[in-house]
Amino acid sequence: MLKIESARVIVSSPGRNFVTLKIETNEGVYGIGDATLNGRELAVASYLQDHIVPCLIGRDAHRIEDIWQFFYRGAYWRRGPVTMSAIAAVDMALWDIKAKVAGLPLYQLLGGAARDNVLVYCHANGKTVEETIEDALKHKEMGYKAIRLQAGVPGLKSTYGVPKGKEAYEPADADIPTENLWSTEKYMRSCPKLFEAGRQALGDDIHLLHDVHHRLTPIEAARLGKDLEPYRLFWLEDSVDDDNQENFRIIRRHTTTPLAIGEIFNSVWDMKTLIQEQLIDYIRSTIVHTGGITHLRQIAHFADLFNVKTGFHGATDLSPITMACALHFDMAIHNFGIQEHMPHSELMESIFKIGYTFEDGFMHPGEAPGHGVDIDEKEAAKYPYKRAYLPVNRLEQGGAMTNW
Amino acid sequence: MLKIESARVIVSSPGRNFVTLKIETNEGVYGIGDATLNGRELAVASYLQDHIVPCLIGRDAHRIEDIWQFFYRGAYWRRGPVTMSAIAAVDMALWDIKAKVAGLPLYQLLGGAARDNVLVYCHANGKTVEETIEDALKHKEMGYKAIRLQAGVPGLKSTYGVPKGKEAYEPADADIPTENLWSTEKYMRSCPKLFEAGRQALGDDIHLLHDVHHRLTPIEAARLGKDLEPYRLFWLEDSVDDDNQENFRIIRRHTTTPLAIGEIFNSVWDMKTLIQEQLIDYIRSTIVHTGGITHLRQIAHFADLFNVKTGFHGATDLSPITMACALHFDMAIHNFGIQEHMPHSELMESIFKIGYTFEDGFMHPGEAPGHGVDIDEKEAAKYPYKRAYLPVNRLEQGGAMTNW
Amino acid sequence: MLKIESARVIVSSPGRNFVTLKIETNEGVYGIGDATLNGRELAVASYLQDHIVPCLIGRDAHRIEDIWQFFYRGAYWRRGPVTMSAIAAVDMALWDIKAKVAGLPLYQLLGGAARDNVLVYCHANGKTVEETIEDALKHKEMGYKAIRLQAGVPGLKSTYGVPKGKEAYEPADADIPTENLWSTEKYMRSCPKLFEAGRQALGDDIHLLHDVHHRLTPIEAARLGKDLEPYRLFWLEDSVDDDNQENFRIIRRHTTTPLAIGEIFNSVWDMKTLIQEQLIDYIRSTIVHTGGITHLRQIAHFADLFNVKTGFHGATDLSPITMACALHFDMAIHNFGIQEHMPHSELMESIFKIGYTFEDGFMHPGEAPGHGVDIDEKEAAKYPYKRAYLPVNRLEQGGAMTNW
Amino acid sequence: MLKIESARVIVSSPGRNFVTLKIETNEGVYGIGDATLNGRELAVASYLQDHIVPCLIGRDAHRIEDIWQFFYRGAYWRRGPVTMSAIAAVDMALWDIKAKVAGLPLYQLLGGAARDNVLVYCHANGKTVEETIEDALKHKEMGYKAIRLQAGVPGLKSTYGVPKGKEAYEPADADIPTENLWSTEKYMRSCPKLFEAGRQALGDDIHLLHDVHHRLTPIEAARLGKDLEPYRLFWLEDSVDDDNQENFRIIRRHTTTPLAIGEIFNSVWDMKTLIQEQLIDYIRSTIVHTGGITHLRQIAHFADLFNVKTGFHGATDLSPITMACALHFDMAIHNFGIQEHMPHSELMESIFKIGYTFEDGFMHPGEAPGHGVDIDEKEAAKYPYKRAYLPVNRLEQGGAMTNW
Repeated sequence: MLKIESARVIVSSPGRNFVTLKIETNEGVYGIGDATLNGRELAVASYLQDHIVPCLIGRDAHRIEDIWQFFYRGAYWRRGPVTMSAIAAVDMALWDIKAKVAGLPLYQLLGGAARDNVLVYCHANGKTVEETIEDALKHKEMGYKAIRLQAGVPGLKSTYGVPKGKEAYEPADADIPTENLWSTEKYMRSCPKLFEAGRQALGDDIHLLHDVHHRLTPIEAARLGKDLEPYRLFWLEDSVDDDNQENFRIIRRHTTTPLAIGEIFNSVWDMKTLIQEQLIDYIRSTIVHTGGITHLRQIAHFADLFNVKTGFHGATDLSPITMACALHFDMAIHNFGIQEHMPHSELMESIFKIGYTFEDGFMHPGEAPGHGVDIDEKEAAKYPYKRAYLPVNRLEQGGAMTNW
Repeated sequence: MLKIESARVIVSSPGRNFVTLKIETNEGVYGIGDATLNGRELAVASYLQDHIVPCLIGRDAHRIEDIWQFFYRGAYWRRGPVTMSAIAAVDMALWDIKAKVAGLPLYQLLGGAARDNVLVYCHANGKTVEETIEDALKHKEMGYKAIRLQAGVPGLKSTYGVPKGKEAYEPADADIPTENLWSTEKYMRSCPKLFEAGRQALGDDIHLLHDVHHRLTPIEAARLGKDLEPYRLFWLEDSVDDDNQENFRIIRRHTTTPLAIGEIFNSVWDMKTLIQEQLIDYIRSTIVHTGGITHLRQIAHFADLFNVKTGFHGATDLSPITMACALHFDMAIHNFGIQEHMPHSELMESIFKIGYTFEDGFMHPGEAPGHGVDIDEKEAAKYPYKRAYLPVNRLEQGGAMTNW
Repeated sequence: MLKIESARVIVSSPGRNFVTLKIETNEGVYGIGDATLNGRELAVASYLQDHIVPCLIGRDAHRIEDIWQFFYRGAYWRRGPVTMSAIAAVDMALWDIKAKVAGLPLYQLLGGAARDNVLVYCHANGKTVEETIEDALKHKEMGYKAIRLQAGVPGLKSTYGVPKGKEAYEPADADIPTENLWSTEKYMRSCPKLFEAGRQALGDDIHLLHDVHHRLTPIEAARLGKDLEPYRLFWLEDSVDDDNQENFRIIRRHTTTPLAIGEIFNSVWDMKTLIQEQLIDYIRSTIVHTGGITHLRQIAHFADLFNVKTGFHGATDLSPITMACALHFDMAIHNFGIQEHMPHSELMESIFKIGYTFEDGFMHPGEAPGHGVDIDEKEAAKYPYKRAYLPVNRLEQGGAMTNW
Repeated sequence: MLKIESARVIVSSPGRNFVTLKIETNEGVYGIGDATLNGRELAVASYLQDHIVPCLIGRDAHRIEDIWQFFYRGAYWRRGPVTMSAIAAVDMALWDIKAKVAGLPLYQLLGGAARDNVLVYCHANGKTVEETIEDALKHKEMGYKAIRLQAGVPGLKSTYGVPKGKEAYEPADADIPTENLWSTEKYMRSCPKLFEAGRQALGDDIHLLHDVHHRLTPIEAARLGKDLEPYRLFWLEDSVDDDNQENFRIIRRHTTTPLAIGEIFNSVWDMKTLIQEQLIDYIRSTIVHTGGITHLRQIAHFADLFNVKTGFHGATDLSPITMACALHFDMAIHNFGIQEHMPHSELMESIFKIGYTFEDGFMHPGEAPGHGVDIDEKEAAKYPYKRAYLPVNRLEQGGAMTNW
């Protein structure tokens, strides 16, 4: 039996916090999985170390499905981001081990290459439309075929996706959540202008994407979708609150702009209606927040029957381990759509040794056995956990809490 | 401003683990909330201590709704038992504070007494039908008007709800999950016999309840509901897996046995379809696992529109704080149905000082300002956390994981 | 690159016809897949040899998903038993190769063992109720925990599942289809008696199953389902015509007898409504007739979300290769229910070398790398194709064609 | 009894492969049917020769319905292009015989002429918009009242419907499938321009049609339908994947462009939802791929109840026999819409002697008894089968398989 002999949690903060699970077996093969949940990292670390690890020791590392069910059903209280990120870390580490034992890159175990490489999209940000376009042109130069545009909203001090200064955008920017102010009206007026300029500057051959970040009501999202139709977006992301799946019935009725959602979902039950009623076009669930490869594969197989493609979340709030697993997954499934790509810093990649590559707008997971990412624990230990939060949002008019 | 000056997490294990949040204000008033999540206690403790408490300090303790939204929306990744138990603890503590400031028992702030007292049901267990009936008759003696019957299944070594020896039933019985074996067929054959005997022994005036504990498929649950119709159950609880709400469409079509579910739900989104399509009769969500009084009140208001009543979970995996808050809640809302009651041990009540009372089958939350429960921190410190898990379940035939 | 160098079709008839595809690679590793379609064997052989094999040569054997899509989408006219059996053979052979390359039994690549072994059901047949019970008792002796009962219908000369003489039941019994006569009324009266006797003779601990073989209308099936409720069947199979999935809405409304269907389905589109509306409890699709492991895994993942379990067809019209693949699949997926088992003859197993085993009512696929079945081509060549058909059915009253 | 004495399959390739079934009776009357399935011809030939023909001999040629049911239900595994093309060939040949026996053209047996003649549409193709318009003007000259426009997509090397050189368009162009590359975005931008030019050049009195060839997702098809509204298409064909009928719910909600689909369907079950929910306007099933006249008549009758008209596939991948049968069918049914017409080459018509005629945009099946097409077997023998495939399609970005 390929026995799990030890498992430990590594929390490291090379610029932002990452939680990693390392599982070691009696045959010397080990695997690592990502358990990072931005702003709630230590709760997942505790869930793993205090509640999951004791149950892992002694189990057969090959029984991935059984272990998944053990932790999903065995928890009694199921789902939620903390639980599902912890389970995901176990799942990634076990698939890493299995693929190493097989001597194959992970994507081979998932059915082999269904494509040559993985189309990715990047982020272009700016305080103004002009700055954003400039940034987008830079990314086009770098080879990207798909670019997400986010610009500051005139009249608002800050908005999602736009860096404050010259540094790279990092939303988890404070040890107590920054409170931003929001005006739907200002945003709704400015957004179409961004895409009018963007389409003109970038031409027809670049995919343009946009993230509303959950801030509109369904009828507002419907209006925005219609307003953006002339610019032929690849997708409009997270246009409304994610809780009520039926929200999308309204949007869907009004616009042909393709719709994406799901980076904060953590199980198929958060999206079953969305998929089954074909209310969306792309599902953005991530491997780390949605229970790992085992659960996400079930979701992808389900979504394929309803013409919903994948477009996994891939910001740097996921560690390179999730990025690697996503790329293997993207290579292997039929209904892949696009993959988000926000490169990790050099410092991060000095701790997480990656095998995946970027070239001319596409990525590839590499050919090393397993998922191909390893962690340098000694280096990791140099960067202890540092509390950091995403911002919260309040309405400019009246100051009530709203979605960030 | 009634300012939050400190908040701390107390983990104590007087027989089982309880997680308590204590919030102190600048005016000396403090409140306590329950954050106990059976088998995953330390993850919630970390969620509170590491991620919520730093954001609480300095806030206005009176702004309960605002703080609720701050932690619900501000977490970005929402829902799930860990998150919602943590938020619930904050919410209970703040309502405790507000009611103390008002000098009123909590139910008064929730709209005042809509009834005189709270109908509760108790548990009668036994290894055999006879033992269970005997236990039920004892409880009838004690004044209970409603009794849940659970008996051992002939041919199975163990089942949910049935103690192994003479001691009180405590499912979280080991530091690594006990693996039980399950046979649906054996259970399905034995269950109606229990209720045939139960109705005969206890008469028509006692409400009889039963908990399937998620173990049947929808069509099996439909069959069981039909089989039990002659014994006129008050409710049949958790008859199927909770994930897919549409499961209840099948059961509902075949039987008039009233249906209850929800002790593992953690937000309205886990039950919206169930309520909206009137697929159930009682919703069993608890205050501690469903985001506190603030969120559960919204759920109760919604359920009332669809003739769904409450029947909150009330086992000893909730601390006396949740029990007290539930009783206040039960007093005040219109669509209250019944309240589960499983008394805490004397040891537990030496740490949690309670004000609520039981008399002749009914309970009352008491008239002390706040929710009426306090914690003796010194005593609590004597019982450090002790890892304990609920069992898991495997199928007798083949050994696959199934629901416990 | 693991290059496909040759592929050939082997048709052999050791008692009944089997079509096998053998794929050989440049590294010496080869794999075999089953393409047997009872009564239409040579059409599948031609589909493979004339149309698929020329496209296979030179491809990367590791790209299973890509090759599946190539033949599914590339055919332009999709689906149907001939097409999907041919694609299934390719898929099984490629998974066999991949698992051999990995040095692991196939179930390990599918997620590892989700159970210890595979519950199977056998067939008990007889011209009368008494003969059937006798046969069932024999099978109970052999260790079977689940038995399908089929008995002759008084007043009908022949019926499905009942052998003519003393030999094992073999429906494909003639080189021109035998024409049977059918009376629904006679059958409907006799069937419940079989199960009354069966439950009495076999006791409560044996699972009883029954196959209607598509012969009733929906309302007749609803009536039969109700009539059989006292005998608590494991499932009622193929109770109506398979074409119109909505047929099951009627049956489902009237009975809690669990429902199974699908042995003649060949893609998810034949069962999407059945699954999505939870109209059935078990899906009986086979790997050979439903596009292989790749497509059936997607189906199983989809079905799991709707509480539909698998119960794969496993009669001897599938070769031992399909049986082996099914057992690996059954081991690995979460929502396995039961597996049909009709043992192949010694002669058949002298050609197909099997690794799977039966013990005390359960089967196991074995631990050899790949799916574990090999073909002895020399032996196979000794038994050339022999035309054989399943019977057809006519109504006793009037003689119109009806379902067999 | 009009006894079937022999039946044989003729495979001939005068430019492309055609499979013909010839049935001869004891009275000397014979009939022929088409069984051509592009790229899978020999599998259908085997299905007929090896599995159907042996069962045909000796049957009463007049019992068309009985024979249809015999082969549909008697196959046990039903449907799919191979099966249904084989059954269709039998059905056409038998209708041919029956009409010859009656001494009447086939349409008379189907109810007589419901119209004077049959509106047809032709294909206009070109590498550029200009070339296509030029070709369309030529066809307008020839009398066509309805013209399908397909133009090359700027930036793509090849696309469906556009010939490579100067010769007539023949997609089955290679003995191993050509791999084309596809970009939805490039196509979506260019298509409306084609119809803007087309409507301008051809005027308002010409029906314009377009075939997307299954390449869009539902939301993309919705967008294209909207984009094309100003040009008032007769229909937009095969805009999405055919597997999931619910795809059309989305398209239907967004556009009033009439929708057609069905050339790859093979039974009513592939289109029941489409028709029942009135999601389409024209059904394009062909006689050869949809089980013959017997089954397609049932489909037409059903469709008429939901205001769906016929618009049968009529490319040269069908032999002149199917073309003739379609024209008889088109004459006789009430809900005829339009008929595709792509003339066969002179060489083809030297083998298949046709009776149908084209004049001024309309066709007529002729008045000869039977369907009016005969085969010159001697000539046919000169052109042996030559393996040929339709192309397959890969995404330009990433190289995954997609629909051709």
